[in-house]
Amino acid sequence: MRLVVPLQGVVQGRGGFLLGSLIPCSLFYFLQLYLKRRRAHPPSSRPDLSVRVSSRAGPVAKPSDSPYYIGLETAKKDPYDRTRNPDGIMQLGLSESTLCFDLLQKWMSENLMESMIPNGDDDLSISKIAMYKPFDGLMELKVAIAGFLSRIMGNVSFDPERMAITAGANPAVEILTFCLADHGNAFLIPTPYYPGFDRDIKFRTGVELIPVHCRSSDNFTLTISVLDQAFNQARQRGRDVRGIIFSNPSNPVGNIMSRELLYDILRFAQEKNIHVISDEIFAGSVYGDQEFVSMAEIADSGEFDKSRVHIIYSFSKDLSIPGFRAGIVYSHHETVVAAAKKLTRFSSVPVPIQRLLVSMLSDSRFIEEYITAHRKRIRDKHDRFVDGLKQLGIPCAESGGGLYCWVDMSSLLTSHSEEGELELFERLLTVAKINATPGSACYCIEPGWFRCCFTALTDDEIQTVMDRIERVAR
Amino acid sequence: MRLVVPLQGVVQGRGGFLLGSLIPCSLFYFLQLYLKRRRAHPPSSRPDLSVRVSSRAGPVAKPSDSPYYIGLETAKKDPYDRTRNPDGIMQLGLSESTLCFDLLQKWMSENLMESMIPNGDDDLSISKIAMYKPFDGLMELKVAIAGFLSRIMGNVSFDPERMAITAGANPAVEILTFCLADHGNAFLIPTPYYPGFDRDIKFRTGVELIPVHCRSSDNFTLTISVLDQAFNQARQRGRDVRGIIFSNPSNPVGNIMSRELLYDILRFAQEKNIHVISDEIFAGSVYGDQEFVSMAEIADSGEFDKSRVHIIYSFSKDLSIPGFRAGIVYSHHETVVAAAKKLTRFSSVPVPIQRLLVSMLSDSRFIEEYITAHRKRIRDKHDRFVDGLKQLGIPCAESGGGLYCWVDMSSLLTSHSEEGELELFERLLTVAKINATPGSACYCIEPGWFRCCFTALTDDEIQTVMDRIERVAR
Repeated sequence: MRLVVPLQGVVQGRGGFLLGSLIPCSLFYFLQLYLKRRRAHPPSSRPDLSVRVSSRAGPVAKPSDSPYYIGLETAKKDPYDRTRNPDGIMQLGLSESTLCFDLLQKWMSENLMESMIPNGDDDLSISKIAMYKPFDGLMELKVAIAGFLSRIMGNVSFDPERMAITAGANPAVEILTFCLADHGNAFLIPTPYYPGFDRDIKFRTGVELIPVHCRSSDNFTLTISVLDQAFNQARQRGRDVRGIIFSNPSNPVGNIMSRELLYDILRFAQEKNIHVISDEIFAGSVYGDQEFVSMAEIADSGEFDKSRVHIIYSFSKDLSIPGFRAGIVYSHHETVVAAAKKLTRFSSVPVPIQRLLVSMLSDSRFIEEYITAHRKRIRDKHDRFVDGLKQLGIPCAESGGGLYCWVDMSSLLTSHSEEGELELFERLLTVAKINATPGSACYCIEPGWFRCCFTALTDDEIQTVMDRIERVAR
Repeated sequence: MRLVVPLQGVVQGRGGFLLGSLIPCSLFYFLQLYLKRRRAHPPSSRPDLSVRVSSRAGPVAKPSDSPYYIGLETAKKDPYDRTRNPDGIMQLGLSESTLCFDLLQKWMSENLMESMIPNGDDDLSISKIAMYKPFDGLMELKVAIAGFLSRIMGNVSFDPERMAITAGANPAVEILTFCLADHGNAFLIPTPYYPGFDRDIKFRTGVELIPVHCRSSDNFTLTISVLDQAFNQARQRGRDVRGIIFSNPSNPVGNIMSRELLYDILRFAQEKNIHVISDEIFAGSVYGDQEFVSMAEIADSGEFDKSRVHIIYSFSKDLSIPGFRAGIVYSHHETVVAAAKKLTRFSSVPVPIQRLLVSMLSDSRFIEEYITAHRKRIRDKHDRFVDGLKQLGIPCAESGGGLYCWVDMSSLLTSHSEEGELELFERLLTVAKINATPGSACYCIEPGWFRCCFTALTDDEIQTVMDRIERVAR
């Protein structure tokens, strides 16, 4: 009012004529100026300005600002190689294993040809791999997978009819999310969690993730009380929580959920009438003394309505073949099974790869030898890596599964905050030339934790990693 | 009024009290009856009722009522086999070819092993196929594909940087649709069209298809006038049309778009500022005298804003390897290219398959021999099939590409309507034991047309097909 009243006076009084001429004139002047500037800087000839794309393409196309992806991309541009690029960046950010490549190489050399083109002398054997087969996978492969899962997960059986084979775990997660939740619905997810879930879940389905924060004081183990609290808070904020999703063994921590915790989670889900997605892609990479229990076993206990339980599995980690892109959706819900099978038209596994997997998984002698070696070698590598860190005074979380350690580098932080953590991430990447995934990329709320994958490193390389970390620690 | 007035009399008069008691009593009685019936047929114990899934899972899970899928499923249950099941259903519904399996078999036997595990004596060669590689495909493969496409499409070059490799054409179509249009937006599509587009486009993206009806009088060739009419009608109905999508060579007709028509379409798209998706998966299966021209070539002419032009390709048809699940998205739009590459995390092609394709596509002698034989053998088979039909008095549309004929069986209809067509489809399936795709499944508005795939038939089997059709024709 203070401003308006004097202005009114000016306008209605003698200043009226002056302002009445001045305002349109100056507006016209500024319009001319604006148009002239536009002409001087015409819209760039980038196609983005000429034809509209969907509103959802932009966010997907945008470069990620997550240190997980920044680290991976940076390491890819200057990769360490003992002989060719010894000063390159060592990759501890990618969860892959070369520990059993000798066994894999031998098996492939002996069996690849015969498994893909059986009876090589038959003129038509090509028709067994070249022609259309069901998008959701060969029944032979589903049967072989069911047998393999029982072998690595212990006391549980899988029904091949409830399985859809997918091009790795990523589409398996997306397909389940699409089937269980609508746009705007949410899933609870214990933190720290695998950064890739953000893309798997959010890129296309429109489903959101609500973090349930776990703490170092519990070795980052989920508790029902924090779960319940997160659920209630979400409800109060009007969110439609459709389920809980987690990795067991945990990625990035590597700890394993106890049977009791799994029961509690499923009881909680039953009480709230929500779904449970259990990502068990590291089930065969358990190397500690703690038993791994599949959520499928708990679902089978008879105590629960099974239809809310869904399992993700993939061969990328336990068989060390991420390049083969093969995984599954396993669900107890009829509608979900039917929909998932149809959706594999977008994510199906080539028939030659399926044939290879049938042969490999059915070769029980190989599988036995492989899994035993895989577990033992991860354990040895883990112990060596953890020992190396211990000598630097750097502790790790307790873990018994997975291809990584969850390392507490908080003692190396210059400030105890997310900024301090990202500053250390940067120093590791550029000074030590190590790409390790910072906890903040996994939504960990305690600064200073890093995921370090150690199963693609030789023993010598582990020593190099330690030397490089020491460089930053000093 | 005639009824109400006497009723008013009854209600307000002496009948009022009676009706006032009777109506609530009878309503209560029917309510009881309804509840009792519900109790007598309690909800089945299927899990669907216990925990809610997403609203979008149901429509996907639902069995299809399209005769395309019904035919495929029925044929799969009782498949014809010359020796083991000579009375089984002959599959003319699936677009696959066995015509060059001799060449493929020979190449695979000689090269499969070496291309997947190069230098078999090197202990680490497994690392070249087992480990993570970019989800959107190896650059080596993109370069090889660009070369191959120039070979089969003639005067056009493809930039490997604009390519994302996908698990077949299905995810390529879905990814493009997702990137170009939002939920509720629409694409124009000339009819008759490939029935699978409904799933590729509608299952997950929420984008709709508006048919643009082409007619037999034009040999089902699209004209700009019907396109313009459909566009305007859609606009008037408030639809946001984001583009036009079509197959060239057409699936199911097999006709080829002329260079002039392609120019006109792109000019139309530019005028309306919409996108063009050209599905060119049959480009290497052109066998007639008419030249095939890629929309990529028209986009390169310099006359247009290229960013609206997007190409789909796959190896399923031209290399007869649908079981290998390999295709591409090719786009001139930066945002679309970037988003498509990211979205291949859900649809990536296994590295061993990529390595195999690199070897195969780089083997120019094989490709030359294969493509020449493929085209010649389709032409021979086409001529034999069309001749057989001609002897029965059944004509076909003019075609020069693809693995099928578009057959005019209207003379066999008992009624000239969609019902009549479906009745003939049923008779072909159950009496003649032939699965051919009826035009209505392809949204053709003229009844009596059927798509018949002939490239998985031997010459003897073509004769059997003719004998069986004759059985229905009599």
